Amino acid sequence: LRDNELTTVREFLETQELADVAAYVEELDADHDLQAMRLLPLHDQAELIGYLRPSSQVAIATALSRRELARLMTAMSHDERADLYKHLEPEAQEAILPALTKAEREDLRRLAAYEEWTVGSVMTSDYATLRPEMTSSEAIEALRAQALEAETIYNAYIVNDARQLVGVVSLRDLLTARPRQPVSDVMETDPIWIRAEAEQEEAARMVARYDLLALPVLDAEDRLVGIVTADDAMDVVEDETTEDIHKSGMVAPFETSVAEATIAMLYKARIYWLVLLVFGNIFSGAGIAAFEDTIAAHLSLLFFLPLLIASGGNAGTQSATLMVRALATGDVRVSDFGWLLGREAVIALALGLTMALAVSLIGVWRGGPEIAVVVALSMVAIVLIGALLGMCLPFIFAKVDRDPAAASGPLVTSIADVLGVLMYFGIASVLLDF
Amino acid sequence: LRDNELTTVREFLETQELADVAAYVEELDADHDLQAMRLLPLHDQAELIGYLRPSSQVAIATALSRRELARLMTAMSHDERADLYKHLEPEAQEAILPALTKAEREDLRRLAAYEEWTVGSVMTSDYATLRPEMTSSEAIEALRAQALEAETIYNAYIVNDARQLVGVVSLRDLLTARPRQPVSDVMETDPIWIRAEAEQEEAARMVARYDLLALPVLDAEDRLVGIVTADDAMDVVEDETTEDIHKSGMVAPFETSVAEATIAMLYKARIYWLVLLVFGNIFSGAGIAAFEDTIAAHLSLLFFLPLLIASGGNAGTQSATLMVRALATGDVRVSDFGWLLGREAVIALALGLTMALAVSLIGVWRGGPEIAVVVALSMVAIVLIGALLGMCLPFIFAKVDRDPAAASGPLVTSIADVLGVLMYFGIASVLLDF
Repeated sequence: LRDNELTTVREFLETQELADVAAYVEELDADHDLQAMRLLPLHDQAELIGYLRPSSQVAIATALSRRELARLMTAMSHDERADLYKHLEPEAQEAILPALTKAEREDLRRLAAYEEWTVGSVMTSDYATLRPEMTSSEAIEALRAQALEAETIYNAYIVNDARQLVGVVSLRDLLTARPRQPVSDVMETDPIWIRAEAEQEEAARMVARYDLLALPVLDAEDRLVGIVTADDAMDVVEDETTEDIHKSGMVAPFETSVAEATIAMLYKARIYWLVLLVFGNIFSGAGIAAFEDTIAAHLSLLFFLPLLIASGGNAGTQSATLMVRALATGDVRVSDFGWLLGREAVIALALGLTMALAVSLIGVWRGGPEIAVVVALSMVAIVLIGALLGMCLPFIFAKVDRDPAAASGPLVTSIADVLGVLMYFGIASVLLDF
Repeated sequence: LRDNELTTVREFLETQELADVAAYVEELDADHDLQAMRLLPLHDQAELIGYLRPSSQVAIATALSRRELARLMTAMSHDERADLYKHLEPEAQEAILPALTKAEREDLRRLAAYEEWTVGSVMTSDYATLRPEMTSSEAIEALRAQALEAETIYNAYIVNDARQLVGVVSLRDLLTARPRQPVSDVMETDPIWIRAEAEQEEAARMVARYDLLALPVLDAEDRLVGIVTADDAMDVVEDETTEDIHKSGMVAPFETSVAEATIAMLYKARIYWLVLLVFGNIFSGAGIAAFEDTIAAHLSLLFFLPLLIASGGNAGTQSATLMVRALATGDVRVSDFGWLLGREAVIALALGLTMALAVSLIGVWRGGPEIAVVVALSMVAIVLIGALLGMCLPFIFAKVDRDPAAASGPLVTSIADVLGVLMYFGIASVLLDF
């Protein structure tokens, strides 16, 4: 690119939101994205890199000189630079540390040390702090001074000499307080907090439940070590929901996003359930084999096999899907099980009867009235059992402290399939083989 | 409850977060929840009611006197009182209006008039506004004055005489600006905004993408009519995700939450897919019926029918699940289709070969080497076709502007089932009937 073109590009980039600039940069090749990034002021570069995929971040970080990278990392928010650091190769990690200040180095090492699924791994350490003896106007001055560095100044954290959290105050409350009123008077003294070693999912749930802008994070000695901001909590919710959806679609968790995943990762995440379900279906096959005589005598029964078996799994998947999601969002609780089961029984019976009516018409047409009766009876029984199974399994899993999401679709369908085969041919052999 | 007990309860409630108090209130019966609520100061009551389920809100509103309800609604945030108003019976709506001020009445009618799925239905009208000619210290004073009424003062909106949006400024930027600097100097003049008639999902996506605290909402004449706050956007994301998850579990959208839904609502949301899939499975049944002769000659083929058919549907559900979610979160785009298809083909082939190996061993044991070859070949073909089908359908739906979520699990499984039956018995009749 020539100089005059660069000016045009710079002017264009400056009118754009950084999230959109990041999308353009992702489309460029490695040389050009570095060129595009350098057109922005340093603090925009630092924010921009946080919007890029990990692999693009690493590519840019590797292409930068050590000094440039150190400058960029100094300007980045603390959680994002720790994430970038974690994704770098060990040599690159070693290389960058000496170029940072001692405080930055320690912060980086500390944040990067938390395990992937913990609150510590998503918190940031650039929060605003106040002292309890400040007046509210002094506190506002203090926040003004911290405004460039801190991730947010709308919530500030009051710590004692041991850095233990003694309160939280919002900028709104500081503004509406009398100027001479001490912070200790205005702050909330019993704020909501979470431990750094807790699960990140738990932090996200608390942010959503209490509509927080940020959640303070304490270590085992009650010292403030970070905050989880609402936008980071939203990202955690998105990731956790994706994992739940994948589970319900028979995909085991894997470390990165679908776009970034390798063939080996996706193979591993998928083969497990596929093979497991093959073995589950062996039982269905064995069930069919057990009734070979009945089938040989009434081959027209085979026509209805797929639709009857599928209906049980489908009804079960529906109720499991409804319950797993409702338990995940807190819409229903384990204690609601009783009345939900009663409601489900009524719904399942209505569904089964409707479908029995539909298939009995096909039954008369394909195999005569006897077959129609067998098929209709089987349908009611299969839908009822499938739906109740799909309803109960997530609650049983929740009750024994397993993830209800593991009880959804595939597992329910496998069990419903076996039961469906046994019920269909069982009913058929009783009614037809006399 | 006696007076001294009431004091104890009040003291207990005051130490609790309102979201938790709401959970207790939900557990109480109608009389007691009113009693518990009255223990709180009015502004806590107003916030508390927003945390309750719609049916509990209506129960409380109906039990209050008209004057009490008017006082409560005046203290509520504008979006939540409009939601409550919408849930009231028409007579109760008529009754409450005269007890409100003219401005409140108009605000309520205006907010309640937006259709359920629009941005207008989730926005609130109690935002903070500034004039462009104010200095930043005047602006901070103005926000201080609006702090009790406004939903947020951390973002403020600058409007001209026609109430058109001319800029947005954060309290952080006002604090770090020089005190005499005019707002028009500090504000962002080209802010992100959305129309009140747009889909609420779109607003939620913008809030997440640009990490906004609030998104301004404009009417057709570019006048500011509301804001969508981050926590309301998070609720929209949760609802939309629930709808997507339900779709993938064969449950059509219904108006309320699972806990609040009636039997009739859930029946209607479920019967559609169940009956549709019965008709889909008729094709599988017809496929089986078409090969009755081959089956009668080799009854041992039936043992493998469930596991082969299920494997195609399972592999297809996996790839559809991965793609639907990745498209929904923006992790992949329609333009990524080419390389994703290539990657999927490699993964599906690896999965198919692994599973063919597993089932061919069972094939030798159950039916001899010939059956094993038929089963292994069918498995590779069925898994490959199923996985590619599951991969392509969401992209086709997205391409023709339909919701990719509709292309997940059930549809893929139905098509994969039919293809699976045809491939299995097709391969069997070619290889075995010579």
